[in-house]
Amino acid sequence: MALVNLVDESSSHPTVKRVFRDIKVTKKIDFVPHFWRALAATPELLDQVWSQLKRTMQPGKVDMLTKEIIALAVSATNGCKYCISSHTAAVQKLGLDRDGYAEVLAVIGLFNLTNSLADALQVEPDIKPDPTWPVG
Amino acid sequence: MALVNLVDESSSHPTVKRVFRDIKVTKKIDFVPHFWRALAATPELLDQVWSQLKRTMQPGKVDMLTKEIIALAVSATNGCKYCISSHTAAVQKLGLDRDGYAEVLAVIGLFNLTNSLADALQVEPDIKPDPTWPVG
Amino acid sequence: MALVNLVDESSSHPTVKRVFRDIKVTKKIDFVPHFWRALAATPELLDQVWSQLKRTMQPGKVDMLTKEIIALAVSATNGCKYCISSHTAAVQKLGLDRDGYAEVLAVIGLFNLTNSLADALQVEPDIKPDPTWPVG
Amino acid sequence: MALVNLVDESSSHPTVKRVFRDIKVTKKIDFVPHFWRALAATPELLDQVWSQLKRTMQPGKVDMLTKEIIALAVSATNGCKYCISSHTAAVQKLGLDRDGYAEVLAVIGLFNLTNSLADALQVEPDIKPDPTWPVG
Amino acid sequence: MALVNLVDESSSHPTVKRVFRDIKVTKKIDFVPHFWRALAATPELLDQVWSQLKRTMQPGKVDMLTKEIIALAVSATNGCKYCISSHTAAVQKLGLDRDGYAEVLAVIGLFNLTNSLADALQVEPDIKPDPTWPVG
Amino acid sequence: MALVNLVDESSSHPTVKRVFRDIKVTKKIDFVPHFWRALAATPELLDQVWSQLKRTMQPGKVDMLTKEIIALAVSATNGCKYCISSHTAAVQKLGLDRDGYAEVLAVIGLFNLTNSLADALQVEPDIKPDPTWPVG
Repeated sequence: MALVNLVDESSSHPTVKRVFRDIKVTKKIDFVPHFWRALAATPELLDQVWSQLKRTMQPGKVDMLTKEIIALAVSATNGCKYCISSHTAAVQKLGLDRDGYAEVLAVIGLFNLTNSLADALQVEPDIKPDPTWPVG
Repeated sequence: MALVNLVDESSSHPTVKRVFRDIKVTKKIDFVPHFWRALAATPELLDQVWSQLKRTMQPGKVDMLTKEIIALAVSATNGCKYCISSHTAAVQKLGLDRDGYAEVLAVIGLFNLTNSLADALQVEPDIKPDPTWPVG
Repeated sequence: MALVNLVDESSSHPTVKRVFRDIKVTKKIDFVPHFWRALAATPELLDQVWSQLKRTMQPGKVDMLTKEIIALAVSATNGCKYCISSHTAAVQKLGLDRDGYAEVLAVIGLFNLTNSLADALQVEPDIKPDPTWPVG
Repeated sequence: MALVNLVDESSSHPTVKRVFRDIKVTKKIDFVPHFWRALAATPELLDQVWSQLKRTMQPGKVDMLTKEIIALAVSATNGCKYCISSHTAAVQKLGLDRDGYAEVLAVIGLFNLTNSLADALQVEPDIKPDPTWPVG
Repeated sequence: MALVNLVDESSSHPTVKRVFRDIKVTKKIDFVPHFWRALAATPELLDQVWSQLKRTMQPGKVDMLTKEIIALAVSATNGCKYCISSHTAAVQKLGLDRDGYAEVLAVIGLFNLTNSLADALQVEPDIKPDPTWPVG
Repeated sequence: MALVNLVDESSSHPTVKRVFRDIKVTKKIDFVPHFWRALAATPELLDQVWSQLKRTMQPGKVDMLTKEIIALAVSATNGCKYCISSHTAAVQKLGLDRDGYAEVLAVIGLFNLTNSLADALQVEPDIKPDPTWPVG
C-alpha cells in the first residue's frame, strides 16, 4: 500500500482532473496508474512531474522504445520496484521481444559489473567524446 | 592514477597478448584502453570480463547504439567516471548527435527523479508485462 | 518477514531489556519497532546502533524535523523500504503538512535528476564552500 | 574537464541568453556556474532543468536552507562530486555554521548505515504515516 | 511474482536442462532457485550468467565463506531483496554464526556511513596500495 | 582538495589530540589520514566516527582481512574514491596477494551484475536463512 492514499480517478480537483484526463489520452489507456494517483495527493507535484514526463517521453531523435529501455536501465540499476514493472511492461508493449529483452538485461548486468570494477581499480578516463558534440 | 599499474600494451603474457590483440581488432582501435590494461594485472580476470563484453556487445535484436546508450544510462546512474567518459564517446562515435544526446540525458535525469519519488511514496506496482514474453 | 526472528519485547536479556526500555522512553512510544527487535538478535549491535542514533537524533543546531527530512531524503535515494516508511511517519508526526511533504519530495526528485546529469556531463566543481567553516 | 564544451557566458543564443540572465538574477551571482554552461550545449535541456529548479527551489512551507540540506543529503548519498561542492557552498552561504554542518553530516552518515542494516535484515515496515496527509 | 514466468524445472530445452542439472549438482541442492528459473526464459542469458557464477564462486585464494560475505555486502549496499535473502542463507550454511553475522552487519553499516562522509567532505585519497600488487 | 580544511596533526584541541594519538597507535602509522583530519574540523563527529570504527574494526569471529574486504566491496559498490583507495591499501597490507585481489574484484563485479538482474526480473525470494541464527 502506498504511503499516501491514492486519489480517486473521478477526482473533481481541477488540476487533477485535467492531468488525469491528459494521462489517459496521451498514454492511450483507460485508467490512471497508481504512481499518478499517489502524486495527485499534492496536485502541484502531479502537474509538474507529468508535464516533464510528457515533454521528455515523446519521439524525437531517439525513438520511444529506446527511451523506455533507458528508463528500464536506470530503474534496474536503482532497484525501483514500481518503475521496473511499468517500464518492463512498456518496452514489451513497444515490441521488444523475448530475445531483445534478454539482450537488454545482459547489457544492464554487464555494465553494472564493469562500473564496479572501473571504480574499484580507479581507472583514469582515457577515451573521451569530442566536446563540441557536432549537430546531426 | 589507477590503483594497479597498467600493463604495457606490448606484454608478452600469452593471455594478455591474445586479449589485447582481440580488443584492438574487435573495437577497430590502435591502442588498448586503460580499463583493460588495469584488468590485465590479473590476466584471468581480463580474459573473463573481455569475453563477456565481446559476447554481449554485438548487434542482435538490439542495435549497438542502443546498447551503448544503456551502458551510459547505467554508468550515469552509478556515477562511474571512467565508464561515463568511454560510453559517451561510444554513443557519439556511433552517430548520436547533439540533440539525440540531450534527449538521452533528459530521459536519464527524468527517471532518476521518478525512481526516487516512486520509492518515496512506496507505490505498489500495477502495470506489469505479460510474463510469457512472446517470442518476436 | 525479516531474515532474523524479531526478539520479543519482553526479553530478559539485560542489554536488550535496557535498550528496549530506553527506546520506548526516548521515542515516547509504547512498543519496540521491528528494526530494533531484529537488531536485538545480536544485543551488542542493537546497543551500538541505538546509542549512535540517540546521540545523533536530538535537537541541536539543526532541529528534529530537518533531521528526519534528511533521513527521508537519504532513504528515498537509497530506496530503503522500511526506512522510508518510518521516516515519512516521523516527518508527519513532527508537523510537516501535505504541502510541505510535496515540497520535500519535489526537492528529493529534482536533485536525483541533477545528480545524474552532473555526473553524466562530468562537470568540474566551481562553487565551493569556505573551507574554514566559520563557527556560528 | 566536462565532456561537453562549456557554453560561453556571452552566448547570443536566445534561450541560453535568457536563461543565463535569469540564473544570475535569481541566484544573485555574477557568473554562470559550470553545470548550466554545460547544459547550455543543448538549450532545450538547459531551459527545462532550470525552470524546474527555479520552481522547486523557492521558499514555501519548507525554507531554503532545509531544501539545500536535502540537496546535500541526496548528493552525498549518490556521491555526486559537483553537486556536493555546490550544495555544501549553498548551505554555508545560507548560514549553516560548523556545528550545524557536523550535525547534518552525522545524520547523513547514520541513515546510510541504518538503510543498509534495515535492507540487510529485510525488516518489514511497521511504522507508517497517516495516508490522508492532513493539510496544514 | 517475477516479471517473467519461471521456467519449469523439468524443462526439456537442451541448454536449460543442462544448466539446471549443473546448478543442482554444483550447489548440492535438489531444486532450482527462482533466479535461475526466471533467467531460463532466455536460455542464452541463463547459460552465460551461470557459467560466470560457477567460475567465480569456487574456492581459490579467497575461501567460499568470504566470497559469500562479499556477495552479501554488495547486495545489502544495493538493497537487492532476492540477493540479500539468498546470500544471507549462504553465509549461514557455510557456518557463520550469530556473532559473526552481527560483525558482518556492523562492518557493512559502518562503511556505508564512512562512504557518505568521505564523499560529502570530498577528501582526497592519501593512502594507496602498492600498484605492482606483489604476487603471493 | 577537501571541502573543509584539514586539521593540523599537531592540533592542541583536547578531543582531536586524543583521537589523533589513538588513531596512530591503533593503526600503527605515523601520520593521521586525511579523512580523520577533515572530520576533526568538528571534533565531536571525529570522536564519534573513530570510536565506532575502532570498536567495529577489531578481530572477532570475523578476521581483519575479511572485514577490510567487506569495506572494499561496499566502497566499490558505492563508488567512493577515497574509501576504495584506503581499503584497497588495507587488504594489500593484510596480505591479500594479486590473485586473491583478482578474485575479490571478480566477486564484487559478479554480484553487482546479478543484483541488477534479480531486481530487473523482480524475482521473489525463495532461499532464506534459518531466522533463529544459531549461536556458534
